[in-house]
Amino acid sequence: MDSVSRLSTSAERDWQTVSEGGPVRIAMIGLGWWTKQQAIPAVEASDLCETTVLVSSSAEKASSCASRSETIARGISYDEFHDGVAADAYDAVYVVTPNALHLPFVETAAELGKAVLCEKPIESTLDRAERLVAACDDADVPLMVAYRMQTEPAVRRMRELVQAERIGDPVQVHGHMSQQLLDLIPNPDQWRLDPELSGGATAIDIGMYPLNTTRFVLDDDPTAVSATVRADDELFEAVGDQHASFTLEFPTGVTAVCTVSNGAASASHLEVIGTDGSIRLDPAFAPWAQRELRVSNSESTASYAFEQVDQMTEEFDYFADRVLSGGAILPDGEHALVDMAVAEAIYESGDVGRRLEL
Amino acid sequence: MDSVSRLSTSAERDWQTVSEGGPVRIAMIGLGWWTKQQAIPAVEASDLCETTVLVSSSAEKASSCASRSETIARGISYDEFHDGVAADAYDAVYVVTPNALHLPFVETAAELGKAVLCEKPIESTLDRAERLVAACDDADVPLMVAYRMQTEPAVRRMRELVQAERIGDPVQVHGHMSQQLLDLIPNPDQWRLDPELSGGATAIDIGMYPLNTTRFVLDDDPTAVSATVRADDELFEAVGDQHASFTLEFPTGVTAVCTVSNGAASASHLEVIGTDGSIRLDPAFAPWAQRELRVSNSESTASYAFEQVDQMTEEFDYFADRVLSGGAILPDGEHALVDMAVAEAIYESGDVGRRLEL
Repeated sequence: MDSVSRLSTSAERDWQTVSEGGPVRIAMIGLGWWTKQQAIPAVEASDLCETTVLVSSSAEKASSCASRSETIARGISYDEFHDGVAADAYDAVYVVTPNALHLPFVETAAELGKAVLCEKPIESTLDRAERLVAACDDADVPLMVAYRMQTEPAVRRMRELVQAERIGDPVQVHGHMSQQLLDLIPNPDQWRLDPELSGGATAIDIGMYPLNTTRFVLDDDPTAVSATVRADDELFEAVGDQHASFTLEFPTGVTAVCTVSNGAASASHLEVIGTDGSIRLDPAFAPWAQRELRVSNSESTASYAFEQVDQMTEEFDYFADRVLSGGAILPDGEHALVDMAVAEAIYESGDVGRRLEL
Repeated sequence: MDSVSRLSTSAERDWQTVSEGGPVRIAMIGLGWWTKQQAIPAVEASDLCETTVLVSSSAEKASSCASRSETIARGISYDEFHDGVAADAYDAVYVVTPNALHLPFVETAAELGKAVLCEKPIESTLDRAERLVAACDDADVPLMVAYRMQTEPAVRRMRELVQAERIGDPVQVHGHMSQQLLDLIPNPDQWRLDPELSGGATAIDIGMYPLNTTRFVLDDDPTAVSATVRADDELFEAVGDQHASFTLEFPTGVTAVCTVSNGAASASHLEVIGTDGSIRLDPAFAPWAQRELRVSNSESTASYAFEQVDQMTEEFDYFADRVLSGGAILPDGEHALVDMAVAEAIYESGDVGRRLEL
């Protein structure tokens, strides 16, 4: 009854509706390592986008970085951005500043009528996130939140198999994401450790991976949360969450148990156990990892391998596809507000030691 | 830096202190499918034990079953057991009745001066479990609780690697065990669904696998619990727990998130993520499964395969080894009481929606 097959699966873009047009010209706001090493190269490799403007704390820093690329015409300062400088040179913004700075940049972008791709978490608190979403709604500009798992082929295949009931009805989910933040970014003064700028270091940040991806794969939203949150390393004391675990309860009765840590070795997985089988993606969330998707049910065990894609290129092209077509964006602002409400509930539940209904 | 090796590991009995002697003559109390299909053959294959007496609800049933084996001299009824019938024919008892019947049988065995191997959970409630342990203590008879993972070579290797800090310091644990109880035992009137006889269907029963094995691998006991417990199928309504999830907090700061279900496909795993790597056993708990142990750390990734052993033979020989040598038994009564306290806390936490300190 058991058979093992290994299928190579092409990275088909089942979401694509536009094959030409644009490019959507992007202003990138915030020039940290992620922008420079991931986002700019990803847009260079994309079909439908082009980076044309960089925005940083100083015009000099932005210009210096801009000069390294052919398509980037301008480097401007944050203040210049707010003054509308170079607004004719871009159609959309990619906001990748510290979390608590998303709101002012998105407000300006919305006033300028620009489409917005905003990094996750969408903001540092639910209240500020709601204002951010309202700013885009009021200005009627498209807003996408940068959950790159939603355009990751292995995750999309996992969702497809779960929705096709290949493991029966989902019953329980395990999710995990960990990294050694201070090894990755060896700076004790980094903004992620400043609660005013980040809103939290772990649950609100890498917690989004198991949380949002579980929502995406199940196509459902949690209605209750219980959590534990703690910090061992004194550098995490101000922000409070170096490690977190949380249990999500869904209306169908599914429970998801998730752990996230900024003080553990790099590891990630997502597994759904159903009435007739189980499906596991491991590693699940790290951008550079070769994913393996294993599905077992009463009929067979199969392992899917995937062509490696640049997750950021997929994400940018999806965003551009929707901006050009005017089509609905799945990880939109309302969708992201659910994660923000859950993140706040994780911190509160960890604090009060109680299960909280959402 | 990454290398993959596959090592076949012999099932060495690192716990063995006695190589001959005995046999320890065993009376098996309770003749369900587990006793007949697992325990009796396991003892037949063991080095140090022999089944000599069977005890069941009726002497006829016990005798009929006994006649199928060369070593089993007597089949007696529960009442006859309590009356001391055939007490000269056995040195120890293996108690595998419904949970809430463990106490009276163990009390009698202790009065008769017999060593006790008691199935898990040790009883249906913490209070009854404490009385059971006290009965053995008062009579000064050895008591072992049948956590067969503690003599499973793959689990012992996992514990050894964790204790040797091969993944650094443990940070987070994931544990899971599920089965479709009503497919395995298609009887709606089975005792596991009767709260008076079982004390619970899932958390107290298969919940012991991730709970006790996590304790064993970490060599530590939890100090706080949060849980969700639910039943979808109406056959589980009386007992309340068809599915459960629980988070265990350890004094070191480690958190373990565990899920167990009697309404999901057969699956099990145990994973520990540490500061320098992770280790995963999958499948972990099913007795017939070919286990794979995967260890990743900053130096390498290795996968260990194991010679398949009969877990029950290992368990019986360990028990006999300790009975013959008088050596300390690791999964003893005090050890099992911790699991019972946790199981009660899981039900209470699920009920009140709060984190409970133990």
